[in-house]
Order: sequence, then C-alpha cells, then structure tokens
Amino acid sequence: MRGNSFGDLFTITTFGESHGVAIGAVIDGMPAGLIVDIQALQNELDKRRPGRLKVSTSRSELDQAQIISGVYEGKTLGTPICVIVKNTNQKSEDYNELKNEYRPGHADQTTMMKFGHRDHRGGGRASGRETLARVIGGYFASLVIPQVKFKAIISHIGPFKVTEPSEYLNTRSHLGFADETKDNELEQYLLDLKTEGNSIGGSIYLNISACPPGLGEPVFDKLKAELTKAFMSIGSCMGVLFGRGTEFSTLTGKEISQDSHNFAGIEGGISNGKDIYCEIIFKAPSTVGEKALNGRHDPCILPRVIPVVESMAKIVIADQFLKQNAFQLNS
Amino acid sequence: MRGNSFGDLFTITTFGESHGVAIGAVIDGMPAGLIVDIQALQNELDKRRPGRLKVSTSRSELDQAQIISGVYEGKTLGTPICVIVKNTNQKSEDYNELKNEYRPGHADQTTMMKFGHRDHRGGGRASGRETLARVIGGYFASLVIPQVKFKAIISHIGPFKVTEPSEYLNTRSHLGFADETKDNELEQYLLDLKTEGNSIGGSIYLNISACPPGLGEPVFDKLKAELTKAFMSIGSCMGVLFGRGTEFSTLTGKEISQDSHNFAGIEGGISNGKDIYCEIIFKAPSTVGEKALNGRHDPCILPRVIPVVESMAKIVIADQFLKQNAFQLNS
Amino acid sequence: MRGNSFGDLFTITTFGESHGVAIGAVIDGMPAGLIVDIQALQNELDKRRPGRLKVSTSRSELDQAQIISGVYEGKTLGTPICVIVKNTNQKSEDYNELKNEYRPGHADQTTMMKFGHRDHRGGGRASGRETLARVIGGYFASLVIPQVKFKAIISHIGPFKVTEPSEYLNTRSHLGFADETKDNELEQYLLDLKTEGNSIGGSIYLNISACPPGLGEPVFDKLKAELTKAFMSIGSCMGVLFGRGTEFSTLTGKEISQDSHNFAGIEGGISNGKDIYCEIIFKAPSTVGEKALNGRHDPCILPRVIPVVESMAKIVIADQFLKQNAFQLNS
Amino acid sequence: MRGNSFGDLFTITTFGESHGVAIGAVIDGMPAGLIVDIQALQNELDKRRPGRLKVSTSRSELDQAQIISGVYEGKTLGTPICVIVKNTNQKSEDYNELKNEYRPGHADQTTMMKFGHRDHRGGGRASGRETLARVIGGYFASLVIPQVKFKAIISHIGPFKVTEPSEYLNTRSHLGFADETKDNELEQYLLDLKTEGNSIGGSIYLNISACPPGLGEPVFDKLKAELTKAFMSIGSCMGVLFGRGTEFSTLTGKEISQDSHNFAGIEGGISNGKDIYCEIIFKAPSTVGEKALNGRHDPCILPRVIPVVESMAKIVIADQFLKQNAFQLNS
Repeated sequence: MRGNSFGDLFTITTFGESHGVAIGAVIDGMPAGLIVDIQALQNELDKRRPGRLKVSTSRSELDQAQIISGVYEGKTLGTPICVIVKNTNQKSEDYNELKNEYRPGHADQTTMMKFGHRDHRGGGRASGRETLARVIGGYFASLVIPQVKFKAIISHIGPFKVTEPSEYLNTRSHLGFADETKDNELEQYLLDLKTEGNSIGGSIYLNISACPPGLGEPVFDKLKAELTKAFMSIGSCMGVLFGRGTEFSTLTGKEISQDSHNFAGIEGGISNGKDIYCEIIFKAPSTVGEKALNGRHDPCILPRVIPVVESMAKIVIADQFLKQNAFQLNS
Repeated sequence: MRGNSFGDLFTITTFGESHGVAIGAVIDGMPAGLIVDIQALQNELDKRRPGRLKVSTSRSELDQAQIISGVYEGKTLGTPICVIVKNTNQKSEDYNELKNEYRPGHADQTTMMKFGHRDHRGGGRASGRETLARVIGGYFASLVIPQVKFKAIISHIGPFKVTEPSEYLNTRSHLGFADETKDNELEQYLLDLKTEGNSIGGSIYLNISACPPGLGEPVFDKLKAELTKAFMSIGSCMGVLFGRGTEFSTLTGKEISQDSHNFAGIEGGISNGKDIYCEIIFKAPSTVGEKALNGRHDPCILPRVIPVVESMAKIVIADQFLKQNAFQLNS
Repeated sequence: MRGNSFGDLFTITTFGESHGVAIGAVIDGMPAGLIVDIQALQNELDKRRPGRLKVSTSRSELDQAQIISGVYEGKTLGTPICVIVKNTNQKSEDYNELKNEYRPGHADQTTMMKFGHRDHRGGGRASGRETLARVIGGYFASLVIPQVKFKAIISHIGPFKVTEPSEYLNTRSHLGFADETKDNELEQYLLDLKTEGNSIGGSIYLNISACPPGLGEPVFDKLKAELTKAFMSIGSCMGVLFGRGTEFSTLTGKEISQDSHNFAGIEGGISNGKDIYCEIIFKAPSTVGEKALNGRHDPCILPRVIPVVESMAKIVIADQFLKQNAFQLNS
Repeated sequence: MRGNSFGDLFTITTFGESHGVAIGAVIDGMPAGLIVDIQALQNELDKRRPGRLKVSTSRSELDQAQIISGVYEGKTLGTPICVIVKNTNQKSEDYNELKNEYRPGHADQTTMMKFGHRDHRGGGRASGRETLARVIGGYFASLVIPQVKFKAIISHIGPFKVTEPSEYLNTRSHLGFADETKDNELEQYLLDLKTEGNSIGGSIYLNISACPPGLGEPVFDKLKAELTKAFMSIGSCMGVLFGRGTEFSTLTGKEISQDSHNFAGIEGGISNGKDIYCEIIFKAPSTVGEKALNGRHDPCILPRVIPVVESMAKIVIADQFLKQNAFQLNS
C-alpha cells in the first residue's frame, strides 16, 4: 500500500536505506521446489555493482547476498524468501553537507514534504542502492519463467545512438551499449563528463522473447501497463515507448497493420507470443557541478540500470504468468 | 486481481461488454457526505460520446448514467457507488463477420488465447465503450480532490502538431486539438481518412495543476509510475513521456538542472506541488480498409480519448491523495 | 479496501442499499468457459427469500437475478460478472420512524459515527438484503469447485438443540433445523416469539466435504482464518468454533490426538482432505418490542442465514483453490 | 497473496523458518516521525520468550531484535521497517526424527501436500517462533494508536477457570492466568502434564478499551471479522467468541438489548467506542507422549500466546485506524 511491494502473486517487498544496516527483499509467492543457484544470483547483483566500470561511482561494496529464509537444501520452500545485502562501505560523513540541502531532481525535498523526516545519507531509501533488491527479485522471478528471455541494451546515450537496436541484441559491449565497437569512445565521453562535473541521460531498449501468449489482463492490468509501471518506478525513468513509439503519432492504420511486429507482441493488452519490445528513457543524474566531482557519482546510470530493467520485466512476467496459471482449471 | 479494478483506497471496478446489457462501474472508497451533481457526471460522459463529432462513429447512444447505489439525498454515503449505462443501440448483427475473424492489433485473437471464449460483438470487453466506466470513476474522483485541475489537449495528429502544447491549455477547439484555428482543416483531414478506410494516431498532452505536494510513494508506486500505468491501460496507448521526453537521452545534467520545470512536477517519484505534465501517444485504430468503411469506426480516437485521460489522472490523484491522508496522524 | 470486496483471486464486490435501486455483485476472477445455469442461481437466491417461511418477514420480493455482464452464450467469459437484483418492494415510509433513531445492536449509530451520513431506510447498506449479493457470489464460486460439497444446518435455536449435528447432515427440515421432526414445534416457538415482539439466536453447523488438500496458506491466511473471517462478516454472527470448540479448553493433547477428526480437516492452517466443520453462532435480532410487531422483522434469522453461510464458504474455498492452482508449475 | 502479509495500510510481512538464519518482519505503512524505543520492543519480545516460565520449552534464546531499516535518529522514517531476530540456539539434530514423520495436528503433512518440500526442523515456517514477528508488528502498531489499551489474560486452562474474566483485567499472575492466587497450583498442574508427556488447551480473554468509534468497515471487513481472522491465524486457535459467545444461541433479543455491553463494543461491524472483548480458544499442543518428554515442548502454549493475541489486536486496530483516517477529508 505504501508502495514498497510489487506484484500480486509473485510479490517482492523491498526495504533498507542506502546507509542503514542493509538493503533487502522479501519475495512472497515463490513456487516451491525450484532450485536456487546462489552464484547465479550473485552474478546478477554484480552486474549493477558500482566499481565494475571505470565510469561508475567509486563505492566498491561487494554487495554479497545472504539468503535469510525460504530456501532449504538448495530448493525453494514456497515460504517467503528474504535476502539481504549489508551496507559495508557507508561513508556517511560524505553526505553531511546534504543534511540541510535539497538537491534538484532528487527526492530530498519531496521526502520532507511527504514524511517530515528523512535519512539524508546517500539519498536514504531513494538511493539507487534500493535497486539491488529488485535484482534479487528478478533472479527469483526468472526461476518461475525460465523459458522467457530478457535482453536489455543501451540504444542511446547523448551523441551515441543506434537506429535499429533490435539488430544489436547480442552485443558484448562491456558498457551495455548496443554497438560494442563504440565502447572506448563512449567510455572516454563519460569520463570527460565526469571530469566536468556533468552527466548525461539515455535510452534502454528491452526485448522479451518466448513470452507465453495470454499474459496480461484486458482492462487496467494490460501487460504494457504493468511493464510500464515497473520501468517508471525506476529512479530517473522519464518515459516508456512500445513498438514504434513517437512515430505512432504520424503512422496511419494502414501503415501499422502491414507488419504485426508494430504491435510489439501485445494486442488488446495481452501477449500474443511474439517478441515484446520497448524503449525506456532515463534522464541524466541531477547531481552536477562541484558535488559531482567527488567519487560517488555516476555521470550516466544507464550501464547499471540494464539489470534493473531486466529484473523488473522478469518480475512482471512471472507475476502475470502465475496469474494466468491460477485460472486454468484442468478438470 | 484480474485487472478490472484500479486504485487502492479510491477503487474503481468496471464491468460490461460492448453489446451486453450495460457498461458499469463500482466505486469503493468514496468519502461520505460529498455532493453529487448528476448533470455534471452526464456532461463528462457526453464528452466521449460517439456521434458528437462529425468524424466519430455513428453509434449514437445517449449513454445515460443511472446511479444504482451509494448516493442518498444527493450526497455520497461512503458505501459503494454503482453507476450503469445501458447499451441501447447494439446492432450485434453488424459484427457477425467478426465472429470467426481476428482483427490485427485488436484483442480478438489474444482474448481467445487467454480465455478460450469471447463475446466478439463490438470487441466485447475490449471495446472502447469500457472507457465510459472510467469517465464515471473520474467524475467521482474529482469530488475527492476538487482543488486539482486536469487539462488534456491533443498536441499531435498526423501532420497536425504544436511544438509547445503548454501554451494551448485554454484551447476551445471542439475536436480538442491544441490549436483551435486548425479545427476545420483537421476535421477535413479526418473525414478524408475515413473515406479512404484509413486511420491515424496522435498524442495527448496532459497538465495537472494545483496538485498537493507529497503524493506518490517513493519506491514502486512513484506518482509517475501510477499515472503511466493508468494511461497505458487505455486501449491503443503506446507510450508515455514525462517532462522533456525523448530529449532526455541527449540532455546533460547541467541542462536539466537549470529549469525545475524539467522535472515535470515530480521529484523522487513524489509530487512537488508544481505542474505535472506528460505526453501520451496513441496508435491509429487498426481497423482499416473495407471494414472501416461502415459507420461504426473512428478514423482517430484522440478526440474521444481526452476525457478518458483526464479521468484516469483524476482517479490516480484521488487515490494517492487518500493514501497520503491516511498516514497523517494529527489528532 | 473499504471492505466491500472479498477474495483475492475469486473476488466478489457487493453494492446496494436495502431501499435503493438494486442490490448487486461484481465477480472478478471467474475462470472462462464455465456453464451458467440461471435457474440454479435463482434457486439459491430463493433459499434466503423472505416470505418463503411463515415465520419470516412479510417483505415478499421476487429477488429476480439479472446478469448484466460476463456471460455470453451461456458460458462465463472470464470478464467480470455483474448480477443485480432490483428492490421492487421498498416501503420506505415504513422506516420513517428510524430516521432519527438508533436501534441498539444495529449499525444505525455506528454508521453515523463512521460516515456522518446514512440511508436509514431498512438499514441501508447494513440490511440483511446485502447477503443476496453473497449468495450470487456463492453460486459462481461453486462453478469453480463443483466437486466440493457444502452443507449448513441449524444445530441450535433457543431450547431446540441437537448434540451431534454431524448426524443430521441429510435433514429435510424446511426450516433448516437439524432434526426435521421438530419442525412444527420450532415453527410455533418462533411464531410465539414474533407475537411477543421478541426474537432468538442460534447456531449453524457447517460441513465441507471433498475439499482438496493443500488449501489455505500457512501463516496469516490459514484456511480456518479465511473461513472465520467470512462467517464473522455476516451480520449478527458472534462466534465461530472449529472442531470441538469450547471443549478444547479442557481437552488434553492425548485426548485430542486420538481422533484426527478433532482437527476438523485443517492442520497447520491447511486443508488435509478430510471433512472441515465448524459451528457458527448468531445473536438474536436486536429489534424487539413494538417495532418488531410489524411484518418486516424476523424473530430468528437462522433459516435465512443457511445459504449465506454456505455461500461464504464456497467463495473462500474457490478463492483458495485458485490461489493454490496458481503456484502449480507442472501441468 | 500467499498469506505472509497482514493488514492493508499498516502491513506486516513476516519471514523465516524456525531453524533458518533468522525470523523477521517488514512493516510497511508506518507513519513517519514516531519515536521508537528499542527497549520497549525488546520487552514485548521477552514476554513470549521460552525459558522465562518454568513450564515453557527449554529453548532459551535471547531473541534479540535488530532493526535493519526504517528508523533513523530514533524516529520512524515512513519507509519499511525491517526487524530481524537471529536463530541462535537451533539444535537441528533434535528434529532429525521428524524428517520422515508427520505429527498429528501439525503442519507437517499438509505442508508436504501443499508445497511438496519442507524444512522439517522445528516445524519450519509453521513454528511458534514465527509469532516473534507478530509481536514486533504489534509493538510498531501500538505507536500508531497509543491511546488504545489492550489486555489479554488467560481465563481458562483445563480445570482452572474464572467465570467473570473481566474482573481480573489487572491480574499480576506471572503465568498470565486471570486469578493470580492460583499461580502455584497452575504451575504444578502444568509441570505434572509435562512429566506425563501430556498437554492442555485453554482460553484467552481479550479486552480492548479506548478504541475510537467508527473503526471497521460495514460489510466484509467488519471489525469483528478482521479481529477474528487475526486470532484464528495463530496456530492452535480453534475458536473466537464475542460478547456472550455460545450463550447467544439461547438468549432472546429482549435479553440482549437490555445491556449494551452484550454487543461487545461493535455494532453493525463498526466500533462504538465502548470496550471490545472476546474469548479465544486454543487447543492443546498435539505433540504428546515420548516426543513431548524432551525439553523443547510446552505442555500449554497459553502463557506465551498472550503477547501474540495482544499484538494481532494492535495490528488490526492500527490498520483500521489508518483506513478510517484516510477518508476524513476535512482536517
């Protein structure tokens, strides 16, 4: 109700402030008997870890996941799975200056408007560190729907852009940008921005393949609505576009109907079994100027957002899958 | 759970197929003692009525709202408000051809994939007629938050586009297009499309002003996430963009931070008291060619979608308002 | 959220005041493709109709169910099913005296405390007529779990009591009392009470057989907890006892463990496949004295509560069945 | 959805198996700015700690609460509060014998029926240890409604019974039995049962005073229904009786109406501001005979259940209080 949970049947609840004891997630609605691979979970978490990329923040925690409950003898029990990641590298004093300051574009001021009390250290609950919990959820969601494939790549960062991101789904760029041949150039661009105390936004292209047909509900919980809410709940996300996106304002019905790919795998709000894809737009981090010069700030969050986008998509699809499954009466 | 309800505290549940007995809504979570003006409700419904515009479908039902429960002596009781609108003009035989046909971009095929049984007449539950129920919900939501102002206008339809929609919020165009001087030209454009059996998409610009600060929850239920889900649950909606939208991929942090208007009234997922605005993109109706030549098909849904967009926004803000109110312990 | 809905996956929402336009229910979460028998639904409604029993209130409405949505060609669509029953026999003037009066043990005063506005006619939303909507829900729930058998009988009314209600599950008493040989005597007892302007309480014994094992969730949503909430949500219900009820305060563990029937079909909150049974206690109607002498008041609600108890049990079991079904991955 | 959460606005989610890493709770829906007293929380937990009573299980963990999130500088942040209690004294080998055995009246067999996989050690998730998390929830709930007073006492254990429990609300019995003069006698009775490998059930009387009027919703979420579900979700609970309980089957309307106390503080499902009271019946622990002779088994759970009953009542009242607060528009 206060929005720290997501999903109806596969439900993730997250908790934890950036500089508190730990960040964690409780997953309620995990089917029993599924095999859990802790190393695979850790690998997912490592993808969003700062310190991995030269351009990322210098906060280099190990982000070690600890399973507290719900798994026994390597298999899910069907009971709530709690996983926590301790905050081991909090330099709270780095944030003393923020105690009485509200950064533009951050939750600082609105948190005070809403709650009248806040943990200013590192953004508190609004920190990007909260997304760790979502990646944990994404890992467990993927166990529910192992057949579905999720692939997110960066399609656009400032001057770097690919026109047909669908052609780059097998990119091996270490930054996650669609066109891996641009890696060095992009990295230099980001380092320069950091030196200037500046930052940049971008877009992520997500493709979901092998999604079963029939997922999503026909009215308010259309699959595109559920996915979009999931992505818009990520900090800095400012837009989501399915299929041909802004082009739809100028495309005629005849033009659209010629290619079923234009419907982006969803008709009437329900998956049709074809590839689902969308573009997700993120604004540049608002912390700029002198404050951005210390080591803690990313000039661009896109590389680290990739596993978060994939995880939110996994959670949505797992939840919708269980929902559709509930109503299949094999009698 | 099956997605026919929206909202946690102010909850609307809709029911009804296009050619069934009636379309209706149950609103649970209406504060007691608020004055209900049936004529004002009817006025809202009339805004989305087909037949009002020359370019709209020829189905000319009166869409008369009947309040079944929850209102006594002109005031809300705090009990569920049920309102129904009878389907008086169903020409089911018009749809006989659809019984064994799946229209591209419609729910026809996916409904069968999901449910294995469907009411093909007029799209059944997936008909645009379902949005009548949302407009009913929007009217009652507006009673909860009378101080908040919602204004949606069409910013883009095919070749018709305004670059600064915010300058047209007081438009008096009868089609709802931002620039009222283009009304005749736009109407002719749409009539021509209809004659050709073609259709067109477009964008709606929504502005919410006087929204109280502190609405929206910090993590999954960010205000932008709730609003976006609400809009993406409308048929044909393909994208939602807040603030500067796709430009965010190329704007630097320094550029964004110069003008707080860029945050579109939401920081950290929580309203900051300033104007909230976004652009919502709709694809062209997929029914084209011969099928579109009979009288029942709109060449463009944008004019009729305006009250639906406003209504969904009202429902979201009313729900978030009650939620924030719940936790204020000043006694 | 305001408590007019029940169930998570099989969800019933009820609406309507006693003397408003209609009483109704929306059922969201109905599996598609199930055959609906309107006469069978009507038969269920008739079981709780006043006028059927000599001792019941003289309000003799036909309580005709009208299906508004969700059923097409005799089968469920998977969309929300709305059913309404019009209020055709409202003599609102009978209740004028109640406008400024609060009857003890009724919702009159607390409704004003809570909402500050009420429809006093016939108890408004708090009328027993609301249970019509629950019986509608029970009928549709029974389609989800046709294999499960529900049987409620009256085990106790004032001086009339059976000690082993389980031996009377096949009673054919037209009043619903376990021991049909007492029908005439009981009817005279109730008529005498009515003449005196008095009333009486009683108990209902419910047996659920052929319930699949594994229903109910291990912690807060134990099957006994869900069932008990369902029964305690019926007006006048003051207690629910599973298995040996109040005897459990004096029974030792050794005594209990000797007979698995003592666990009443539920262990650890989860059904074990054996018969589930409980006793549900209702207080006498609080309207007594002169007010009770007019024709509208039952001296005992137990006969008419039987189908309501069965319906609430059906709704709980259908909901838990779908929930358990959701998490079965290998089909 | 899988029933590890309770409450709509004040929501507690519990996790943890008896012999896993920890037991914990996440509380979402905590108003911000409330002062947290860790010692007071610990005192509540100590009330249900084994080892405190001579007759209790010999498992003597300290049950030290650690706050992981949601509290900063001694005050609630409005963000989720996570509290965990590590399991420090697990002697898993004590339970090896249970791996392939299903104890009657326990969740052992039904857990396998439901999930097909279980943590047999100490009952796993179904352990009484889970109630630790509820007591944590109860403490935080009490911060929301500090004016409301909750008092639970034992009214009945085997041959020990008081007829008017309401006269003993100020008992200082260290076992929690209403009549403190019986403490030694009762303790000896319980020790004898333990020596025999036997056990006993009993009843708890709960009184809630100074509850604001207007709490509870009129239809499915009546206050008595919410409270009863809360109590019936406690392991071994077999019945809940409000007001005069089983006597209601023989009391006439005239007898009841004479004393408003008979309505137990709830009319029409809504609190009326008077004392709310009920009796809650628990069966004897099913583990008897040789298995019960080792040190881990309580012959009677009533003394340790007292704080759990109070906590569940606090959670219900806090949740209903916030719900009612949400709909008060004029402040």
